[in-house]
Amino acid sequence: MSVFVAFEGGDGCGKSTQARRVASARDALFTFEPGDSLMGADLRRWVLDAATPMSPVTEALLMLTDRSHHVRTLIEPALEAGRSVVSDRFAASSLAYQGYGRGVDLEELRAATDLAVGTCWPDLTVLLDISLEVAVERRALDHRDRFESADAAFHERVRHGYLAMAAAEPSRWFVVDASLDVEQVARLVDERLDELDWS
Amino acid sequence: MSVFVAFEGGDGCGKSTQARRVASARDALFTFEPGDSLMGADLRRWVLDAATPMSPVTEALLMLTDRSHHVRTLIEPALEAGRSVVSDRFAASSLAYQGYGRGVDLEELRAATDLAVGTCWPDLTVLLDISLEVAVERRALDHRDRFESADAAFHERVRHGYLAMAAAEPSRWFVVDASLDVEQVARLVDERLDELDWS
Repeated sequence: MSVFVAFEGGDGCGKSTQARRVASARDALFTFEPGDSLMGADLRRWVLDAATPMSPVTEALLMLTDRSHHVRTLIEPALEAGRSVVSDRFAASSLAYQGYGRGVDLEELRAATDLAVGTCWPDLTVLLDISLEVAVERRALDHRDRFESADAAFHERVRHGYLAMAAAEPSRWFVVDASLDVEQVARLVDERLDELDWS
Repeated sequence: MSVFVAFEGGDGCGKSTQARRVASARDALFTFEPGDSLMGADLRRWVLDAATPMSPVTEALLMLTDRSHHVRTLIEPALEAGRSVVSDRFAASSLAYQGYGRGVDLEELRAATDLAVGTCWPDLTVLLDISLEVAVERRALDHRDRFESADAAFHERVRHGYLAMAAAEPSRWFVVDASLDVEQVARLVDERLDELDWS
């Protein structure tokens, strides 16, 4: 059966590395948000452009537009063809960043997310949980975009949001301490992913 | 008091002409959807590009993103500065085209529209109601975009949607028979608009 796994977490948590590694090892389609389509690349440019003032609601709707297109043009076709999918970020990113982080009403955002995603929810979301201190150490500070230039309190709200979502649905989330070294993280992730039916 | 009026209707109904005329006569800001901003122009290109396959939900979310940006960057600042606003299309377009026309769930679409619009609803929406036959006669058929190339049944559903919304909220809608000549339409529109407080 095909499996849909999303990797989530703050910038610098190592989710892109893990998502690419897992997709490669399990012959799954690797994909990412925002921007993994022709239209998505355009939307991504607007979302990440720190020079364009944009309200949190507009930012959320732009992300949901990209997600909706991503689901219909890449994720659903792959799953329907029997191929597993590993996505670097998915629906939880909107709830964590625009909802918990920027204060967009969570219930309204959940309703709009349901419209965007339809029935295409991940079988498992892996959260690479990381403290702000470790994230800052890890990432280069010279290429700041809209998210990376936000303040520490924002990142704490995002982290809290992720952990709250994971706690609310433990069977659909797996939380890993991303301050561990990359091999340890990989081993923990693989053990949990082995429980899914990738055949 | 500043007034916010939206003009709605199918292609070829004459709403752009009326909206521009009213904005000019009442010294209001004229604006339009989709696309009356730098980001909006980019989004408009994607929405109207018949060559890019896009699901109805993605189309709806793209329109709502544009609307949200339009509200925050143009409409609300004008109204807050005491200037009236006349918009060529607004929220009812999404409900008519993507909801009634393309079958996106109306309740989910209304919820997402509420997220996009916030409290910035028009004081009055003027519907220039037109039959498919008259619309086809009026408009040039050699410049077809995604909407204009859709079929007759789609246009009938859109028209029905507009009329249903107007019937449900008669105090916030004004329906004009757009098959009348342009001076007659202008006179009927002006009579109704005179009832609003434009001072």
